[in-house]
Amino acid sequence: MQCKCGSDIVYYRRYEARGYCMKCFLDSVEKKFRRTVSKNKLIRKGDKVAVAVSGGKDSLSMLYLLNGIAKGFSLISFSVDEGISGYRPKGIECAAELARFLGIEHHVYSYRKEIGMEMDSLEELAGKKVKNCTYCGVFRRYVLNKKARELGAAKLAVGHNLDDEAQSVMMNFVRGDLNRFSRLGASPGESPKFVPRIKPLRDIPEKEIAAYAVLKGIKFSGDECPHSFDNVRRDMQGVLNDFELKYPGTKQQVVGFYDRLRGSLPLPGGSLKECEECGEPSSGALCKACELLFSLKVKRPDQSS
Amino acid sequence: MQCKCGSDIVYYRRYEARGYCMKCFLDSVEKKFRRTVSKNKLIRKGDKVAVAVSGGKDSLSMLYLLNGIAKGFSLISFSVDEGISGYRPKGIECAAELARFLGIEHHVYSYRKEIGMEMDSLEELAGKKVKNCTYCGVFRRYVLNKKARELGAAKLAVGHNLDDEAQSVMMNFVRGDLNRFSRLGASPGESPKFVPRIKPLRDIPEKEIAAYAVLKGIKFSGDECPHSFDNVRRDMQGVLNDFELKYPGTKQQVVGFYDRLRGSLPLPGGSLKECEECGEPSSGALCKACELLFSLKVKRPDQSS
Repeated sequence: MQCKCGSDIVYYRRYEARGYCMKCFLDSVEKKFRRTVSKNKLIRKGDKVAVAVSGGKDSLSMLYLLNGIAKGFSLISFSVDEGISGYRPKGIECAAELARFLGIEHHVYSYRKEIGMEMDSLEELAGKKVKNCTYCGVFRRYVLNKKARELGAAKLAVGHNLDDEAQSVMMNFVRGDLNRFSRLGASPGESPKFVPRIKPLRDIPEKEIAAYAVLKGIKFSGDECPHSFDNVRRDMQGVLNDFELKYPGTKQQVVGFYDRLRGSLPLPGGSLKECEECGEPSSGALCKACELLFSLKVKRPDQSS
Repeated sequence: MQCKCGSDIVYYRRYEARGYCMKCFLDSVEKKFRRTVSKNKLIRKGDKVAVAVSGGKDSLSMLYLLNGIAKGFSLISFSVDEGISGYRPKGIECAAELARFLGIEHHVYSYRKEIGMEMDSLEELAGKKVKNCTYCGVFRRYVLNKKARELGAAKLAVGHNLDDEAQSVMMNFVRGDLNRFSRLGASPGESPKFVPRIKPLRDIPEKEIAAYAVLKGIKFSGDECPHSFDNVRRDMQGVLNDFELKYPGTKQQVVGFYDRLRGSLPLPGGSLKECEECGEPSSGALCKACELLFSLKVKRPDQSS
């Protein structure tokens, strides 16, 4: 089997039943990426886009791809150091290296400095086994939004791929959280302090992004977080992979269906308040991050210094 | 471990982490059944309810349960003979036997007489391998509605259980069929010729209905249809069973979430036309049954005789 252009195949796309040579594969991923950005009007002329890079294949490919179309808008990149020894330092190194290579400004912000604790000491602070990913997710969103805003960004780009998105849709569905379901990926409400998030990789399957990064020679960290464990998301990943194998195109269908569905759902809009503790956008009196920090008895470091 | 009443346990309900003795289990299933019927106002005073009974555990338990609350409304039961040798006759025998035992009128209507073909000869007629369940489902809905109406029924009761419903929700989700999704279980539109379907077992898990039937000594056919095969529904059944095992209550959550979601969705209402060929309610010029029969070149038997 040959690529349409006659060259040898390096990637076989099952949902299209078509093989691609290296050049045609890379072109196709880039085309899909550009279509997602333009179709959804993710970036406007003059925007400063803050790119959140963990150092994994997704965020680094995103930075690389955004750099390739960065005409009329500017990029700045940053990483969040959650304080996970033996794991995050390698990712941050990869992120800094690619940013340097592309000539993009890169910053690192740590949980330690921003919120006064590190993930490695979470269970000690909590005094029991807790859901690490829940805490880390809340803290990360907090730091990402705050720093993107402080960097003067109009948009915050995050590296969620098609698999992540399909998993989130199905998880919220199975969990039955209608509110979270209808605002998946959208802003939780209006606030001048909230930087709109964009997901330029949302239409590209995880496998294709991994292949893209490898073929492009992007050095990324492929390690798994030592604090992550078996959870609903991972189970849903297994289910979706099984279905995708048997019914190629399932992941796209799930996300596409969700999009059409959401069009019919009332968005839980409204205005966000400001957290009484930290001033960040919040739906309640306290934002989720402050709620969790409060439960952990962590005192937030003085931000004025 | 003992039942709350102190007796020995015969059934353990994982999603409640509670064991039940025989009496308390049967009571609980009956209570849940009555709640579904009353909460959703499935039956009105004076209604004649046509009960579709295949002869499996679900439909027979439903007939038995409906009979137990049949005060102020009347029951009539009927079976559809699809023409599947070695399978359907046994089910119809069980259905007729229970109806006789309960003193409920019972009728049998055959595909052969109603539409002029039998499932056993479908692939021969089609001249190729086709999706049996798709054809059979369309024909069954056609016969069920037509006969329920001719029997003068105000409602048509079908034996879909919680598992069936959760599977349907997830299947339509993964398939991305928004129209079918938003009207799952509801009428496809307004028509005086359409008998509203009710699903009184919708909140009861399949396993509990099987246990109920066995404990009540209801004789049912447990055979699998020889024409059914591996399909999306069966895959989804596997997924939901895995999730239910790991996260007890998943099936209820999926169906409950769907119900809340549907409340926010515009129902694709509108009026139904009448099929130009057979006069049955239809969204297009021809109803689905006539479309399929036409593709199979089957001539419908003269219904006037």
